[in-house]
Amino acid sequence: MVKAIPGKAVKRLTLYHYILSDCTRQNVEHISSQQIAGLLQIDDSQVRKDIALCQTSGRTNVGYKAAELKKAIEQALGFKEKKSAFIIGAGNLGRALARHTDFQDYGLDIVALFDTDPAKIDTLVNGRKVFHISELFHISTRENLVNKQKVEIAILTVPGAAAQKSAELLLQSQIKYIWNFTPAVLSVPDNIRVYNENLMGNFLDFTKN
Amino acid sequence: MVKAIPGKAVKRLTLYHYILSDCTRQNVEHISSQQIAGLLQIDDSQVRKDIALCQTSGRTNVGYKAAELKKAIEQALGFKEKKSAFIIGAGNLGRALARHTDFQDYGLDIVALFDTDPAKIDTLVNGRKVFHISELFHISTRENLVNKQKVEIAILTVPGAAAQKSAELLLQSQIKYIWNFTPAVLSVPDNIRVYNENLMGNFLDFTKN
Repeated sequence: MVKAIPGKAVKRLTLYHYILSDCTRQNVEHISSQQIAGLLQIDDSQVRKDIALCQTSGRTNVGYKAAELKKAIEQALGFKEKKSAFIIGAGNLGRALARHTDFQDYGLDIVALFDTDPAKIDTLVNGRKVFHISELFHISTRENLVNKQKVEIAILTVPGAAAQKSAELLLQSQIKYIWNFTPAVLSVPDNIRVYNENLMGNFLDFTKN
Repeated sequence: MVKAIPGKAVKRLTLYHYILSDCTRQNVEHISSQQIAGLLQIDDSQVRKDIALCQTSGRTNVGYKAAELKKAIEQALGFKEKKSAFIIGAGNLGRALARHTDFQDYGLDIVALFDTDPAKIDTLVNGRKVFHISELFHISTRENLVNKQKVEIAILTVPGAAAQKSAELLLQSQIKYIWNFTPAVLSVPDNIRVYNENLMGNFLDFTKN
């Protein structure tokens, strides 16, 4: 179902979900589109339009039922569909993402990490093993590791200078999506989708005023 | 100068800069707008338009001089203007960002970290001290720590459930920008700018097809 929802709406709905999770934690039962819009400094007609993309029983005169709307967004965005990922680069950022507890709530399961540093190979990070990158092809096709589920997502956290070489190694695996946290632009075939997290671009953009 | 450049162009120019850094590393002297556009799968007229926002001596018939264009982008985006930041939350992600070597190349200097965990207080992360969050007001006005430079940026890496409370503590400091890595939407006064990194929204968006 998530396929039918435009990218920008997916991002906004995720933010609404953060707000609704907060409501649940604080036992707030209802929330209005105006309240959500106010927190995000956007128009409340936009909020109502986005919510209409999810199947929900709708508003009452005191606003949306927070728990119900939260569940509807989870369903629409597919939080319950587990997606498996490898982390390529078991340095500081890679290890931090492997330990990121929020990921699992959103359906992202880190299966294994890869690195070239002998000191890191065979260590565990949050219960996940670090393999040598040369084992990628073997691991990515080994059924028992991934419960017969293909791993199609790679989270790239190597140094910028190693990013392109690492991306090329991924072509041997079943990876279809590269979530690129490195300061490098990757050259990959068209059948691989790359999302550039571009941390420095975001930083420079939002601090420019 | 960066103020005159629209946000989307800032983000694209940062990606061009990643490409040009790669050229420098590999002793590639010239690059064309078509080559840059090809790597990013965008239109090359867009690339030329963005580059025109930077003061550069322009193209030759074999393309832009990579080193020169790299420098022009650095100047236009203000990489050399040091910006100081605190990291709020010295957990895995906060510590990883404090150790992120790329940040300094882009003008971002982490001055100190803050946490509430007694085990972390007074430890060093990449040479930067972890303070108790209750010291924030004192530290943010202590001139010697920050070389008389105000710290206006906070990188928020606490758990989602602690995000709003942490943001409220920041109101006592001179923080003007919050770079929010938590899965929480913050309620802050209008004079504080928040950039939601929204990792899960990015992930759900790019893996939806």
